[in-house]
Amino acid sequence: MASIKPSVPKGTRDFSPVEMVKRNFIFDTIKSVFRKYGYQQIETPTMENSSTLMGKYGDEGDKLIFKVLESGEYLEKVKVSRTLSELVEELYGSVYKIPTEIHYSNFSDHFENLKSETEIKSFSTHLRNILSHNFSFKDFNIDSKNLTPKISEKALRYDLTVPFARYVVMHQNEITFPFKRFQVQPVWRADRPQRGRYREFYQCDADVVGSPSLLNEAEFIMIYDEALSKLGLKDFTIKINNRKILSGIAEVIGKADNIIDLTVAIDKLDKIGLDGVIKELLEKGFAEADIEKLKPVILLDGSNSVKLHSLRDALADSPIGLKGCDELETVFNYITNCPLQTATLELDITLARGLNYYTGAIFEVKTNEVAMGSIGGGGRYDDLTGMFGLKDLTGVGISFGADRIYDVMEELNLFPATTNQTTKVLICCFDSEGETYALPLLHSLRKNNINAELYPAGAKIKKQMEYANNKAIPYTILIGSDEMQSGLLTFKDMTSGLQEKLNAEEIAKILL
Amino acid sequence: MASIKPSVPKGTRDFSPVEMVKRNFIFDTIKSVFRKYGYQQIETPTMENSSTLMGKYGDEGDKLIFKVLESGEYLEKVKVSRTLSELVEELYGSVYKIPTEIHYSNFSDHFENLKSETEIKSFSTHLRNILSHNFSFKDFNIDSKNLTPKISEKALRYDLTVPFARYVVMHQNEITFPFKRFQVQPVWRADRPQRGRYREFYQCDADVVGSPSLLNEAEFIMIYDEALSKLGLKDFTIKINNRKILSGIAEVIGKADNIIDLTVAIDKLDKIGLDGVIKELLEKGFAEADIEKLKPVILLDGSNSVKLHSLRDALADSPIGLKGCDELETVFNYITNCPLQTATLELDITLARGLNYYTGAIFEVKTNEVAMGSIGGGGRYDDLTGMFGLKDLTGVGISFGADRIYDVMEELNLFPATTNQTTKVLICCFDSEGETYALPLLHSLRKNNINAELYPAGAKIKKQMEYANNKAIPYTILIGSDEMQSGLLTFKDMTSGLQEKLNAEEIAKILL
Repeated sequence: MASIKPSVPKGTRDFSPVEMVKRNFIFDTIKSVFRKYGYQQIETPTMENSSTLMGKYGDEGDKLIFKVLESGEYLEKVKVSRTLSELVEELYGSVYKIPTEIHYSNFSDHFENLKSETEIKSFSTHLRNILSHNFSFKDFNIDSKNLTPKISEKALRYDLTVPFARYVVMHQNEITFPFKRFQVQPVWRADRPQRGRYREFYQCDADVVGSPSLLNEAEFIMIYDEALSKLGLKDFTIKINNRKILSGIAEVIGKADNIIDLTVAIDKLDKIGLDGVIKELLEKGFAEADIEKLKPVILLDGSNSVKLHSLRDALADSPIGLKGCDELETVFNYITNCPLQTATLELDITLARGLNYYTGAIFEVKTNEVAMGSIGGGGRYDDLTGMFGLKDLTGVGISFGADRIYDVMEELNLFPATTNQTTKVLICCFDSEGETYALPLLHSLRKNNINAELYPAGAKIKKQMEYANNKAIPYTILIGSDEMQSGLLTFKDMTSGLQEKLNAEEIAKILL
Repeated sequence: MASIKPSVPKGTRDFSPVEMVKRNFIFDTIKSVFRKYGYQQIETPTMENSSTLMGKYGDEGDKLIFKVLESGEYLEKVKVSRTLSELVEELYGSVYKIPTEIHYSNFSDHFENLKSETEIKSFSTHLRNILSHNFSFKDFNIDSKNLTPKISEKALRYDLTVPFARYVVMHQNEITFPFKRFQVQPVWRADRPQRGRYREFYQCDADVVGSPSLLNEAEFIMIYDEALSKLGLKDFTIKINNRKILSGIAEVIGKADNIIDLTVAIDKLDKIGLDGVIKELLEKGFAEADIEKLKPVILLDGSNSVKLHSLRDALADSPIGLKGCDELETVFNYITNCPLQTATLELDITLARGLNYYTGAIFEVKTNEVAMGSIGGGGRYDDLTGMFGLKDLTGVGISFGADRIYDVMEELNLFPATTNQTTKVLICCFDSEGETYALPLLHSLRKNNINAELYPAGAKIKKQMEYANNKAIPYTILIGSDEMQSGLLTFKDMTSGLQEKLNAEEIAKILL
């Protein structure tokens, strides 16, 4: 077998031990908070039927879904429904076309029509062209787009939401509603890889379906607050908006149909400023007078309750807008009863993400400690499972951006120095006699649930110490002939470099 | 969007909350033991380059690897190198073949050769055949096998071993050897699904590379013992053999080249008995005298040390066989120093699994409580990374069969009734007043790390109780108007059905 230089597909990553410990710390923390709030874990298969995924993410999304080839002789099922004469006719037109049925009479007719040598030469050139035609898939109307469904029936999960909707519909008779589920699994997108954007990445979602109560919205805010606080973040903002308020604004200025243009423009306030937003709105056909009405709403300021008060004034004529204000107020009241630890909760009417999807609350989380895109988001969608025929099941959910949270924590140095995921002590010995001496100690440390290793006999002590350092093992025990005679082992704190002679029980006490 | 009846691809599964809790219990237990022994987790991408996987599992394995279609216009890169005249010549022979260059002279020659009307008719029929030819991929020498590498460059992980070898080679400069890694990830195989065999399933592997010490073999035995004991298994056997002993046996009877026939036959002793094994060996060309020599080895009995003693006698003339005995003895000595909790360790020279792969120790684990195939296995392989050009790196590893362990535990009812993965208490209220009253209690329970839920106001108490029962929530708190007035809440043990009136602090104490 020829040796090949190995690599991983672009946009995918190996996770080495140090990264895994950190990633597990993030995932375990978030999962423990999900569980504390009554969310239950599910997992769905990596591959879904293509029919489950296709058409759910728009045309652009469909293109980014990784399709899995059928196994076996998949091409045998693909028919090419084309005859040679059809092809020749299409490619070379009807002049001199070869008749599909040749009888003596029309055969000679054909050649009688060739009057001069010039014509015969032209016919011969034509025939030569035909004969030297180099086939391509296009000749048979086969291209990637129409071949794919014939040779691929399965595709890789593109997000966790559609598989979850499929799960709910399939298992609706076993599920007790409201169903609070969380799911932490990788998803795959055939996007062009770039810094921070991968083709395989984990999503970390919690959703509840079948409960219209706004308590759920409030609990998601608490979940963000608790999980991110536990991870060590000290300054972050949970932004909240409500689709109904956006609808109300559009309604008030008589532009209910232009809600998307409106929100797309408002969404850019941070980037392009008020003037930019106004310019864009004018371009989209909004009137100066409408924009004037919008200004106080766009430039909303003050505490959440002050903002809500101004909004109620501005939306006084819009029932749906006022409904949105009521919903937000209810959520704020829940939070008043369960104060947040760290997060700032901010009503932000410029927040619009995935508008077509959301029907009520919209969330987004941003850290204020580091320049970074949103580290979480979500909202309420009133018809999650409709795409699979189960109507009127309302859902609300959030997602944590684990890769970005990782980067934030790395930058702020928030990962704990030691965890229970690494070895606590390495026993080092010089020879097989030391190894034998060490075994009962090793055994008893492990019996006490201490993560312990014994370096196999034979290596130089320097190498063993390097091993401990590279694995960030905080303590080592050295067993030489002195140690075996006295029973007093050399116990070294690898961080401080300090070492002392202790017996096995004393060492166990320190390590416990 | 038309509603479709959703399903999952055959051979794949959803894992519902109850299954997830049980699966996590298995994985978390095994992972904690791996960590205790100094193994570090890595993860590799779901997709590997096809060149990394293909050719590593034999022809049959290659067929079972799921290939991922290139995204975008993948067919544009596929060239059909065929002209029409080549195709016509191949399909319809050279008689009346259309000349590739037509000049006036040979054109008329051609038709002059058609002497009679019969011949012209025959030519016309022939032409008609050609023209009505219905194209297929075969016309262009395209079949699934040769098209696949042109339209697919990535494939789904088939096991964890080859990606691990690829990982070690790619990261060799960052790795501290001996490298003890574990990996728990799904793998995919396009096998025909059947009871207990899935197309997506988890593997759960630990391996150490770069250490020839037999301490590693001994530690894997301890890992099996500790992990399976922790899972609650009470009677299981870890079988051990050594490839060098099998080589020694083949050598002693002068059949070193037939070692595979020999071990395949011996491997069947359990199923076909001694007579069956003898019959098979005779068929494979072994002599009666050889088989006579083999008998005491095949029928080896007694304690491990008695067996080892008999083996040393039988293999006295085979240096490699004696080396195998030495290795086993060393492993047994390590275990003597660290006694096993539950497992029976058994030298079984009929154990051969994956012989071409293993070069030293061979392991297999079987439960004795339930009829079930092996629930674990592994061994030493001297050239793990050779396939990627890194020579002489010895490895030894084991794998846990998580799906089978799940089935065993289910059958023996070994899963713990309650875990920290579920909600501990559900607060039930009648109306929004109760909900508001409940919020501070909910908040304080969660602050005390108690997994708690509040059922959103508005549902009937019966429905709330059903919710608690279906989610196996062990306790509920009922908040009605009496409770709000007195501050004494109705606290119900859902298992016993007993309920009492307690204040919030008393309830928290019980739940902590």
